Amino acid sequence: MDRDDTLCRLKSIEGHVRGVARMVENDAYCIDLLRQIQAIQAALNKVSTKVLDDHIHSCLITVVRGENQGERERVLKEIMEVYEMATKV
Amino acid sequence: MDRDDTLCRLKSIEGHVRGVARMVENDAYCIDLLRQIQAIQAALNKVSTKVLDDHIHSCLITVVRGENQGERERVLKEIMEVYEMATKV
Amino acid sequence: MDRDDTLCRLKSIEGHVRGVARMVENDAYCIDLLRQIQAIQAALNKVSTKVLDDHIHSCLITVVRGENQGERERVLKEIMEVYEMATKV
Amino acid sequence: MDRDDTLCRLKSIEGHVRGVARMVENDAYCIDLLRQIQAIQAALNKVSTKVLDDHIHSCLITVVRGENQGERERVLKEIMEVYEMATKV
Repeated sequence: MDRDDTLCRLKSIEGHVRGVARMVENDAYCIDLLRQIQAIQAALNKVSTKVLDDHIHSCLITVVRGENQGERERVLKEIMEVYEMATKV
Repeated sequence: MDRDDTLCRLKSIEGHVRGVARMVENDAYCIDLLRQIQAIQAALNKVSTKVLDDHIHSCLITVVRGENQGERERVLKEIMEVYEMATKV
Repeated sequence: MDRDDTLCRLKSIEGHVRGVARMVENDAYCIDLLRQIQAIQAALNKVSTKVLDDHIHSCLITVVRGENQGERERVLKEIMEVYEMATKV
Repeated sequence: MDRDDTLCRLKSIEGHVRGVARMVENDAYCIDLLRQIQAIQAALNKVSTKVLDDHIHSCLITVVRGENQGERERVLKEIMEVYEMATKV
């Protein structure tokens, strides 16, 4: 069900990107293009948030409760890398 | 030519989004999904930068050199809105 | 007046940063620190927006209406660099 | 030691903010102000990353390995909120 919701959002984003391409072909006003691109980015952020939320509620919990310390460290490090990418000015 | 480059980039982004959907269908690892989404965001940023660059080198110059002060104010305000959206924490 | 407002905001941000340092000294909860840092980032974004707004309403207009094409190009390029930094994922 | 490093970074950021205020008083060029503000934001991002990294390596691990499911849920939710704030377009 979560997966279906994510797929649905990605399908919609794909259509949104195609819509912006059509706007470019029709010589739309630059600022309107920029607003649509920002809307697509907000939609992608929602997908990212959802995917990360699923991740920390499943994989992260399993690994942190498990005994493999190397794997735990890897999972925590990956989460930090994703956060760092997201905050880069 | 600029338009062709923008269209080419959007086409590629559309394919990238479709690729992420396929990864979701194949139960890809969450962190790999997040990395791909961040790559798409970076690609969209490049399109935005290009579109804004075209805008300030054409529309902005015309309007600022023109005599219609209301239109000039509108164009500057739009640019500020786009910037504000981009910097919102 | 605009300058006074900007100075006032920066003075307040400086105090905010000092406040976060005090929280660290008092072993505040990590998440509370992160929230305060995000509030500081938002305040800095407001200052940036104000500074850029002043810039495009004074310097940009003067240069675009002037005859020095090299200087115009430099000013437009600087604005694009600032925007690119702001949008970097 | 980690705390000392964080305090040291915050002290340096505070000085950086004061430096930008001085630039404003001395009528520095707008674009130079913007660049300095972006440097301050990058420095704040580094502090955030460090604080979150400490958090997930201490508090998060303790809570996830513990038995209090309500508290675990709260900690995961807080991390998601911090991430969402960071990614907001």
